[in-house]
Amino acid sequence: MAVRYELIKTCRQSGARLGRLHTPHGTIETPVFMPVGTLATVKTMSPEELREMGSGILLSNTYHLFLRPGHEIVREAGGLHRFMNWDGAVLTDSGGFQVFSLSNLRQITEEGVSFRSHLSGKPLFISPEKSVEIQNALGADIIMAFDECPPYPADRNYVRQSMDRTYRWLQRCVAAHQRPETQALFGIVQGGMDKDLRQESVRQVTELDLPGYAVGGLSVGEPKDLMYQVLEDAAPLLPTDKPRYLMGVGSPDALVEGVMRGIDMFDCVLPTRIARNGTTMTSRGRLVVRNARYARDFSPLDPDCDCYTCRHYTRAYLRHLIKADETFGLRLTTYHNLYFLFQLMEQVREAIRRDRLSDFRDSFFESYYGPGEERRRGF
Amino acid sequence: MAVRYELIKTCRQSGARLGRLHTPHGTIETPVFMPVGTLATVKTMSPEELREMGSGILLSNTYHLFLRPGHEIVREAGGLHRFMNWDGAVLTDSGGFQVFSLSNLRQITEEGVSFRSHLSGKPLFISPEKSVEIQNALGADIIMAFDECPPYPADRNYVRQSMDRTYRWLQRCVAAHQRPETQALFGIVQGGMDKDLRQESVRQVTELDLPGYAVGGLSVGEPKDLMYQVLEDAAPLLPTDKPRYLMGVGSPDALVEGVMRGIDMFDCVLPTRIARNGTTMTSRGRLVVRNARYARDFSPLDPDCDCYTCRHYTRAYLRHLIKADETFGLRLTTYHNLYFLFQLMEQVREAIRRDRLSDFRDSFFESYYGPGEERRRGF
Ligand SMILES: [Zn+2]
Ligand SMILES: [Zn+2]
Repeated sequence: MAVRYELIKTCRQSGARLGRLHTPHGTIETPVFMPVGTLATVKTMSPEELREMGSGILLSNTYHLFLRPGHEIVREAGGLHRFMNWDGAVLTDSGGFQVFSLSNLRQITEEGVSFRSHLSGKPLFISPEKSVEIQNALGADIIMAFDECPPYPADRNYVRQSMDRTYRWLQRCVAAHQRPETQALFGIVQGGMDKDLRQESVRQVTELDLPGYAVGGLSVGEPKDLMYQVLEDAAPLLPTDKPRYLMGVGSPDALVEGVMRGIDMFDCVLPTRIARNGTTMTSRGRLVVRNARYARDFSPLDPDCDCYTCRHYTRAYLRHLIKADETFGLRLTTYHNLYFLFQLMEQVREAIRRDRLSDFRDSFFESYYGPGEERRRGF
Repeated sequence: MAVRYELIKTCRQSGARLGRLHTPHGTIETPVFMPVGTLATVKTMSPEELREMGSGILLSNTYHLFLRPGHEIVREAGGLHRFMNWDGAVLTDSGGFQVFSLSNLRQITEEGVSFRSHLSGKPLFISPEKSVEIQNALGADIIMAFDECPPYPADRNYVRQSMDRTYRWLQRCVAAHQRPETQALFGIVQGGMDKDLRQESVRQVTELDLPGYAVGGLSVGEPKDLMYQVLEDAAPLLPTDKPRYLMGVGSPDALVEGVMRGIDMFDCVLPTRIARNGTTMTSRGRLVVRNARYARDFSPLDPDCDCYTCRHYTRAYLRHLIKADETFGLRLTTYHNLYFLFQLMEQVREAIRRDRLSDFRDSFFESYYGPGEERRRGF
């Protein structure tokens, strides 16, 4: 098996899991946050910088790489790792989410999805087999089943049909997978926000004894409390000896709350995307460094952070660079935001180790969001 | 005196100079190429990367920093070095060139230049005193006199008037300079393309016994042979114990030809600007890596280069990143182009040391431009 999960311990205070994910490209401590490198690059960052800040696994997007440069070129380059000079682990998504979120004029049939490229308008088709073929060419350590992620809110009947079709697609993905010895295919639990559908989806998907399971269809616009409820419905039914991946989640509160509900892996464009707009995560909450109030602020972005950015640069310099559209400003804010989440996850793992994740959660949220729950409605 | 030039030797084959520039922020071996960090950042690069590739001195632009973030903010930050986290030397230009090249609606009087911000349209005024005031606030190791750079071609009478005014402005700059003990003010030779005007300008400017002299008003659209002729007219009259700086020149051929005519310092946006368009300088000439022919080329950008980019990435990956507007692609091509010029200057210094710069010039041009002179008409 390409990827193996090792459960090290469960936090006695919260039930959160501490573990290790053994992959062909290194062992990763979990819970883990995975930065998103959509087009075989985590925007503005070098692989060395990602390593330095503590990243052992990246996510890359099948849909985007299928469009450019094309999976055949990546395969000829020797796979994603070699193409992008990254010797850590890689996870590719299936392309399903992007087909549904970026493309207009899509048509879903039992066979797969017809859609138009969001770049060229060219008609394209991805089936479960095609998604796996692309992902086999890309060569990531973890590949994802091709699924449909229904919108929120969605009609219950539609969610049920979609979930059943996603399950049939999963079976086709398993059959099509050519490289199970080097690439672990994870299944995706769907089922919308209904407890019974979610639990039925978990039962379907886990029947196949896959090397890992994702919870999909969340973080699509539903209230966070509803997302947490769905995790509480679904996660306890997932096998304890397999990793659990919550897709598309990267806000500090949702990372901690997800871990408390038994999640091991997360990914999200949030830290890198907001960084490019001059918005940063700090130990004292969100800080929009492009704001005029920082024009003469010669203190570091986050006085409690010891990242490259915070050690060497001031808010005034960051604001200047961001206002002037200077790339180096985006490098610096991106570096800090990713570092901040890696530090958060390191603290989360340490809190699990010491059986006090609930205490950590309270003190972290008090500092990050302030007292009360209101500010957590942000990202 | 803030900056001192030490002449180490003169190449017996070419007359080129090998030297050292001692500054408050380190000693720089000359001939040297200075990367341009317009807005207190060399676009896409970190200070550590610039150090790693061999840079000891950067140029930054007074006009741009005057507009944003404003020189007062840089002064409050502790000067440019601290603002941008650069412990090497810095040279600032006077703003004159940008006032003339970027701004419409400018009006030149004896007092100075009225113009409008190319960003906001706001009316502004820079005099010799104002330029020096801004540069004193920025705190660069080397600051430049406020001059007018006439266009090419220009009327001889206009060039003469402009040259005389530039000389009067130089005297005002010297009088206005508040920090001669930590910032060296260089004078600028003008005089257009006429031998007698150039030589008169050299005589005017060198009367003031400044710590260094620049040759301005070149690389403004004139044929390269004419630029070389002007250098041959002017350089021999400059004192041998002061550094000589040719402004705005950075193509490989002009660097070598400039050194052969006695120049010690160069700056240009060329290597960084073309890099952002996917154009690179290699040991075998110009290579436009965004071209379709490199889509499946898994060889390094320059097989003879051992820079970070060439050691780890392929042309196919660079092309993919540039085509997709990914910042990391611009980092990689910028890194390589600057490294290429630093390596070239290192080879130039070594050739001077061995009294064979003319031989080096021939073999380098043969490899870079091919036989004949035609291809040197490019950048
Ligand atoms: Zn930081
Ligand atoms: Zn290179």
